[in-house]
Amino acid sequence: MSAFEKLKTKTVAGMHICVGLDTDIKKIPKHLLANTDPIFEFNKIIIESTASYACAFKINFAFYEKDGSKGIDTLYKTLELIPSDILTIADAKRGDIGNSSELYAQSIYDHFHFDSVTLHPYMGFDSLSPFLNYKDKINFILALTSNNGSIDFEKQKLINGKYLYQLVIEKVNEWNTNTNCGIVFGATNTEELKDNITAFKSLPILLPGIGAQGGSLEEVVKTFTDNNNINYLVNVSRALIYIDNTSNFGDLVNQYINRLDGVIKSIEKIN
Amino acid sequence: MSAFEKLKTKTVAGMHICVGLDTDIKKIPKHLLANTDPIFEFNKIIIESTASYACAFKINFAFYEKDGSKGIDTLYKTLELIPSDILTIADAKRGDIGNSSELYAQSIYDHFHFDSVTLHPYMGFDSLSPFLNYKDKINFILALTSNNGSIDFEKQKLINGKYLYQLVIEKVNEWNTNTNCGIVFGATNTEELKDNITAFKSLPILLPGIGAQGGSLEEVVKTFTDNNNINYLVNVSRALIYIDNTSNFGDLVNQYINRLDGVIKSIEKIN
Repeated sequence: MSAFEKLKTKTVAGMHICVGLDTDIKKIPKHLLANTDPIFEFNKIIIESTASYACAFKINFAFYEKDGSKGIDTLYKTLELIPSDILTIADAKRGDIGNSSELYAQSIYDHFHFDSVTLHPYMGFDSLSPFLNYKDKINFILALTSNNGSIDFEKQKLINGKYLYQLVIEKVNEWNTNTNCGIVFGATNTEELKDNITAFKSLPILLPGIGAQGGSLEEVVKTFTDNNNINYLVNVSRALIYIDNTSNFGDLVNQYINRLDGVIKSIEKIN
Repeated sequence: MSAFEKLKTKTVAGMHICVGLDTDIKKIPKHLLANTDPIFEFNKIIIESTASYACAFKINFAFYEKDGSKGIDTLYKTLELIPSDILTIADAKRGDIGNSSELYAQSIYDHFHFDSVTLHPYMGFDSLSPFLNYKDKINFILALTSNNGSIDFEKQKLINGKYLYQLVIEKVNEWNTNTNCGIVFGATNTEELKDNITAFKSLPILLPGIGAQGGSLEEVVKTFTDNNNINYLVNVSRALIYIDNTSNFGDLVNQYINRLDGVIKSIEKIN
């Protein structure tokens, strides 16, 4: 099943929550530290507790690279646990000149077998094209991110009056000839989301920034729903996975994602 | 010794060549394939053959991540071979929101113990600041890259008449309060190099694009020398490390870097 089909099967059923596995050993319940690989044990319980509601699992590479090859081994084991019908996103934010990007693409898609990736647009088309040559994947390109620093470059106005991030959205639409591109758009940018939603066209939109970073789930879902657009993923990481630190945390995570899922479905009017 | 001191010790002696370990198993001499870890064996000979001329070794992460944790193990072993007085650059092109960037910085600096890194500016200051908090390191931020795609965003003109990459240079100078920033500037952009060289101020400049990508060593060195600037590193990867595929390749690599070093010193008028 292509990445796009995996995603569509979920979104048409009103499932839009992307579970971010930003697993930090300092934040997981203490009782897990007795295990050989506490991060893996934590991920296992999170995946089991969220899989029936998740439209995607997003693995933030920073949290695994921090421990070098040991972290990468945890990443392999974690990937094996994710049900095959759920989209996997390598949140690796790669981007390099063509021959290097080619190898990054091989790493993400041929070696780790992810369904999709996040990419930096800065270096332009030929830095992305090795990823875009993988037709059955989804390449989420950063447009407007959820952090304060988005003001430094992303929100710079170009001479034609557009913002840089708007040019990125426009270019990604141009480069979407294999229908395998998407956009990262920070959920903290509510006004910009409303202003640019029609520019997304058929691109799937990955929205980080809900919860710990202050983005509002209701506003995001309402904006997409008002525009008859169901092609979006709302990432939730810290606010969900660290909701409890007792031995019972899996149940609480499950209850919380159930509640978030309910909020989305009630706005989309899906039972 | 801080990264900046390591670099300065070399550059004042007229040493500006950064050896790029873009090691591709498909391109290394065939006789090495009989080894358990051919990439490591190749790197070992390259490092031995170039260390007396190199001002830095740059490890392109794409080439190691391609093989997952096995590649990372090769990276560890390679790092151990680099003499401690030579700058190591993690060419990893990272960049993410603050809490993720913090972990990427821990990976590069605390886990792998690199002296410096390459970073994407797109997400702005708070995506870089976790790296900038490491005072003894050098953080090379992408400004204008050597690839064709630099036209898509980097060379976009902003409303104030500057190009995006020029704003990046300006901002990096502002953010250089710990004297630990640098700039990546593609050597293929000869005209832009001349036009912007005074804007670099005291930032060390890493220049990829010589050789396989078409940049001219002479032109780059002449431009810096004419401006009394010695604070630069010229990266050479493919054109150097794959110069020969016989069992004698180390000697040929040694002769070639000796020649490049001679070209630089003759322009800088250093004996």
